[in-house]
Amino acid sequence: MMIRIDNRQADELRPVEVETDYLIHPEGSVLITVGQTKVICTATIESRVPSFLRGQGKGWVTAEYSMLPRATGSRNQREATRGKLGGRTMEIQRLIGRSLRAVVDLEKIGERTLWIDCDVIQADGGTRTASITGAFIAMTIALGKLDVPVFPVTDYLAATSVGINSSKQAILDLNYEEDSTAAVDMNLVMTGSGEFVEMQGTGEEATFSRKELNEMLDLGEAGIQQLIKIQQQAIGELSSRIGEKVESAL
Amino acid sequence: MMIRIDNRQADELRPVEVETDYLIHPEGSVLITVGQTKVICTATIESRVPSFLRGQGKGWVTAEYSMLPRATGSRNQREATRGKLGGRTMEIQRLIGRSLRAVVDLEKIGERTLWIDCDVIQADGGTRTASITGAFIAMTIALGKLDVPVFPVTDYLAATSVGINSSKQAILDLNYEEDSTAAVDMNLVMTGSGEFVEMQGTGEEATFSRKELNEMLDLGEAGIQQLIKIQQQAIGELSSRIGEKVESAL
Amino acid sequence: MMIRIDNRQADELRPVEVETDYLIHPEGSVLITVGQTKVICTATIESRVPSFLRGQGKGWVTAEYSMLPRATGSRNQREATRGKLGGRTMEIQRLIGRSLRAVVDLEKIGERTLWIDCDVIQADGGTRTASITGAFIAMTIALGKLDVPVFPVTDYLAATSVGINSSKQAILDLNYEEDSTAAVDMNLVMTGSGEFVEMQGTGEEATFSRKELNEMLDLGEAGIQQLIKIQQQAIGELSSRIGEKVESAL
Amino acid sequence: MMIRIDNRQADELRPVEVETDYLIHPEGSVLITVGQTKVICTATIESRVPSFLRGQGKGWVTAEYSMLPRATGSRNQREATRGKLGGRTMEIQRLIGRSLRAVVDLEKIGERTLWIDCDVIQADGGTRTASITGAFIAMTIALGKLDVPVFPVTDYLAATSVGINSSKQAILDLNYEEDSTAAVDMNLVMTGSGEFVEMQGTGEEATFSRKELNEMLDLGEAGIQQLIKIQQQAIGELSSRIGEKVESAL
Amino acid sequence: MMIRIDNRQADELRPVEVETDYLIHPEGSVLITVGQTKVICTATIESRVPSFLRGQGKGWVTAEYSMLPRATGSRNQREATRGKLGGRTMEIQRLIGRSLRAVVDLEKIGERTLWIDCDVIQADGGTRTASITGAFIAMTIALGKLDVPVFPVTDYLAATSVGINSSKQAILDLNYEEDSTAAVDMNLVMTGSGEFVEMQGTGEEATFSRKELNEMLDLGEAGIQQLIKIQQQAIGELSSRIGEKVESAL
Amino acid sequence: MMIRIDNRQADELRPVEVETDYLIHPEGSVLITVGQTKVICTATIESRVPSFLRGQGKGWVTAEYSMLPRATGSRNQREATRGKLGGRTMEIQRLIGRSLRAVVDLEKIGERTLWIDCDVIQADGGTRTASITGAFIAMTIALGKLDVPVFPVTDYLAATSVGINSSKQAILDLNYEEDSTAAVDMNLVMTGSGEFVEMQGTGEEATFSRKELNEMLDLGEAGIQQLIKIQQQAIGELSSRIGEKVESAL
Repeated sequence: MMIRIDNRQADELRPVEVETDYLIHPEGSVLITVGQTKVICTATIESRVPSFLRGQGKGWVTAEYSMLPRATGSRNQREATRGKLGGRTMEIQRLIGRSLRAVVDLEKIGERTLWIDCDVIQADGGTRTASITGAFIAMTIALGKLDVPVFPVTDYLAATSVGINSSKQAILDLNYEEDSTAAVDMNLVMTGSGEFVEMQGTGEEATFSRKELNEMLDLGEAGIQQLIKIQQQAIGELSSRIGEKVESAL
Repeated sequence: MMIRIDNRQADELRPVEVETDYLIHPEGSVLITVGQTKVICTATIESRVPSFLRGQGKGWVTAEYSMLPRATGSRNQREATRGKLGGRTMEIQRLIGRSLRAVVDLEKIGERTLWIDCDVIQADGGTRTASITGAFIAMTIALGKLDVPVFPVTDYLAATSVGINSSKQAILDLNYEEDSTAAVDMNLVMTGSGEFVEMQGTGEEATFSRKELNEMLDLGEAGIQQLIKIQQQAIGELSSRIGEKVESAL
Repeated sequence: MMIRIDNRQADELRPVEVETDYLIHPEGSVLITVGQTKVICTATIESRVPSFLRGQGKGWVTAEYSMLPRATGSRNQREATRGKLGGRTMEIQRLIGRSLRAVVDLEKIGERTLWIDCDVIQADGGTRTASITGAFIAMTIALGKLDVPVFPVTDYLAATSVGINSSKQAILDLNYEEDSTAAVDMNLVMTGSGEFVEMQGTGEEATFSRKELNEMLDLGEAGIQQLIKIQQQAIGELSSRIGEKVESAL
Repeated sequence: MMIRIDNRQADELRPVEVETDYLIHPEGSVLITVGQTKVICTATIESRVPSFLRGQGKGWVTAEYSMLPRATGSRNQREATRGKLGGRTMEIQRLIGRSLRAVVDLEKIGERTLWIDCDVIQADGGTRTASITGAFIAMTIALGKLDVPVFPVTDYLAATSVGINSSKQAILDLNYEEDSTAAVDMNLVMTGSGEFVEMQGTGEEATFSRKELNEMLDLGEAGIQQLIKIQQQAIGELSSRIGEKVESAL
Repeated sequence: MMIRIDNRQADELRPVEVETDYLIHPEGSVLITVGQTKVICTATIESRVPSFLRGQGKGWVTAEYSMLPRATGSRNQREATRGKLGGRTMEIQRLIGRSLRAVVDLEKIGERTLWIDCDVIQADGGTRTASITGAFIAMTIALGKLDVPVFPVTDYLAATSVGINSSKQAILDLNYEEDSTAAVDMNLVMTGSGEFVEMQGTGEEATFSRKELNEMLDLGEAGIQQLIKIQQQAIGELSSRIGEKVESAL
Repeated sequence: MMIRIDNRQADELRPVEVETDYLIHPEGSVLITVGQTKVICTATIESRVPSFLRGQGKGWVTAEYSMLPRATGSRNQREATRGKLGGRTMEIQRLIGRSLRAVVDLEKIGERTLWIDCDVIQADGGTRTASITGAFIAMTIALGKLDVPVFPVTDYLAATSVGINSSKQAILDLNYEEDSTAAVDMNLVMTGSGEFVEMQGTGEEATFSRKELNEMLDLGEAGIQQLIKIQQQAIGELSSRIGEKVESAL
């Protein structure tokens, strides 16, 4: 039977911790820890929207992602120093923003922009999925401070990774070492009601079968439901407002 | 019963045409037409590798993607004029490169870089999947001119899109109008042996269920097998060398 | 007697082909082929002008030029990837825009901008002059779709190159090989009425006499008149509107 | 008698906390907290030097500085997104690097580069001086892991700010609100032996007399000696090696 | 007794020359020569302010600084060619602007921006301090042409450098060779009434004591008063308006 | 009869002054004044060549061009601040470099690069032609300091502008006001032996006939011969080495 590097079962998440209100300035902020991966997620509410949305009475959610130079084993050059964002960063921040927009009713936030910032303090695999899971909490807390008749968050949203390791076994929530040697790596973003929002699977110079895909999806669905329980605890009373309907707002 | 905008069946690809040796200078070149989408794919062989691979005796495949300003209905500013690549372009060119590397034995091409250029002349949805399907052909033709003992291409590779339209039906090979209104959009990259290489599904500010996922995958698998038949015809005699083993090279 | 590389006479243009409406989206589009040189020229009409012209009731014509990475014998790095336009590109696109403006009555197009895009698909010398000759056609077709009382194009405009080869003979319409070895290279832009619009002659680390200049000008004038005949055929009925006066518009 | 916003005396530092080994990857890392200001300082040792130093047998110390977008009360655009470093960032990172080099014997570290990264997680005034004070600790810890005969750190180094407030009184260690309203702001960097390394005083659209300068210097000298005591505790046993001589290394 | 490289006394400035109205176009212009250092300083008045000041009825003073590539002994690459300003340039231009703003009543210039340009034609140490001393004159001349009730310049402003040389002696107005070998380098910006505006002292990989600081300040104060006498002569009649009060304007 | 704005005859150059050795650091330097136009031209000799020439035993000449922000009537933003060179600057610096290379035997300078810097201090039309005329002198002086058996400058080189004014008359050496209103503007670069090196004529949204071209060329040839006389005086004894043959070097 397979033993994972850190003795986890194939279907076992790493320990997850969430520290809300981690910073004093942002409207919402979280330090999320998944194993050794640590991400500061903040949410800022700005009272205007990008020009392509102006005058439509609806809002926007956008995300930025970055890693400290020594979040990783060897030092990465800062993108600010290089003068441009790398492709990986762009992919990830587009993914985070798109995912969050799937559970926000943009018309209910009015002409406002939510800026989500995910800064990886320490990386050990799964930084983009930890960012999404943490950003959901920071965003929800920030929106909780907004005076709007109906709460704009329609459902929970969390993310994790799944993969096929070199022994051809499906595993949940890969750490960096597992990710580096995996044949397949897949990121899943799902809602509280168990629907998919994003699914990105990559054979890393390898391929995978439909059977392997199904094994990975089974692991991912179960893992994400556990993450959503942690989110519920973190947001406390706000959990009663997720998916709020117009009626309940009366 | 659903009738698609262009009268296609849900499981019907648009007409595909491939013109090989479209340009005189590149080692491999193709004009691929998928419906109204037209992409020029070229392959260039350079006799050196990026610095991170130097001295390892293996090669590299990398891709770049661009659209002419008027490939689309309204004019897009050139990325060269803006001075930087957009996130969408970066995502696509990383996807093309990663996909092709899954079916190339990098050790068999020696210390060489294959530069794949996909330039969209006209866009009507599915430009990234047409790029992958066409780039495979251009790359195979270019590699056919290389004097190496074993042919480095290990399998066919093609791509298409699938989606869930606003009537909640799964459809194959979305054109631009379908893509704009789809609830879900998924790009699939698969090999000749029916394995997945890349799978990227996005609920466009929407979500999708596992049942819908399976319907989309069924459509995509069938569509890609048709595309691979077209690739076989396009590469002609080279088709006998795909997946060549050391034995057959003797 | 001199024999040119491709057996042309000194005063002989390469074969020229023009395919109008080459693309479905732009208001005007042309694929122009001059020998092995192929350029896609498109014209886009935008309903506003740059800020320096705002409120003056007149329009603007501006051009952009690019080459596909493998338009040439060896691959050129994309300017979008490098993050800036090279000097050669800037020179050429300024030349194209300035040339076209000489035959457009900017007041007659109203507060609109014409964006001319010249994308070189394949290069074999003379890409900038082919771009001008083709762009004139694309622009004229686009303007033909505009509802304005007087047609804004005042005259034909075409361009070619002339030079002095290594045997000290003046030649017309140099291909890449001739251009590489020429002592002098001159680009001429002229109108249908035989006037000069632009003249740029360069001794490539060499010099030329006034007598040689006159020989080149004789060749160029004759060549451009042939190109204008081809333009007339390409634009069809619109040819009756070139140089239209206010009276004829009544 | 003056009462400061946070009830401190004029000569009183804010509470300072230092958490060493804050991150798992860097050779040296510290989370330094000064009042509400929090900075992660890391030190990375790279086994090569910039080209201007190559082959001289000596090393280099260089620093980079950044703030999270929501380290501050309103969100700042990321410099990576803007594509360039601002002048303030450049000034600060040059100051940090120059200061640290004053207490490192570059010949004793051999041909290595120390990369110091100071990332401000939360800002409440004094981020550059907290960065220097924390970076000294991270650097010392990293150098403690290096196998060199003589310890290259020659003295302690810490920094604080002093200023003249709107009541014309000299104060130590300004927080953000004090800094915003101060007439004069001065940053001091000093060694354990009480010498100056850097002194940067600015009348913020105001001026200051020599008498005021002397009052500020008195406060700063006392404050820095307190900070150095905190550094001594943080580096523990390494404190015995600061200023190590060749003899003691035998 | 110390003899300086150019036979100056420790407290002796280099010869200073000021040529006003050096250029025909700017509202104020000066060629200032300090020893072998030559800087063209110009002042431009623009009738609008940066967006952060709009509508507040006050103006702004901002500065830019550059060196010709061969202002120095070996050629420096142009910052325009590199595509970005270096840290040193940013530091200097921020210093010049901040210094000038200390002696300009921004409310009295109305919603206007003063652009100060300092271009170093020849460098031999002290380019930033010569820039400030010259820029003050160019700015004053430009403001003298403005029709405002009260002259907005409140005091003189000049700058010089002081340092500690390798013989541990304090010296005034370092030339390049002295600057390169100095242990300490300090730039002082002071007003006509003898107050400090900016003070930036750097131990160049060295340190300095408070006693040395005081010696340097003594030299600097005396030097700056001499520079201000030269400024008075250069601005001629305008000298009567420096520090003008509302009463005197009636 | 036409009277020009500044009372010159149609065939009359503006007053030209040349101050050699204007700066102390460069190997060659000139301040050239043509009417109100002033350009500092410097020549730097670097002991290496660009990579495309390495190992071929020959050298290179390259030029850079810039204007001070207030060289002109209204202030231009610095290209260093904008972060990129404009098209006009690129065109001009390419023209200067190409022109100079026509009169330098690159093999005779060995593996060296000549950097030519032309910085316009004050602009009143004709800045690019004044740059070429001045740069030739700076370059010749710099090369005169090189220890090479045969002097590498093969002929004189000077430049001027000609044009057709709004009264349809050909004129020589246009100042800014004439240039702004001219129908045609042509820059001519010629050698001492009366050959053309560069010829760039532009109908500024206008056209010109072959007869007008010939009138302009007559004026230009005569003007350039006058400029070359001024160059001869400026370079003094070096004039005997222009066009030096191998024999004379023995």
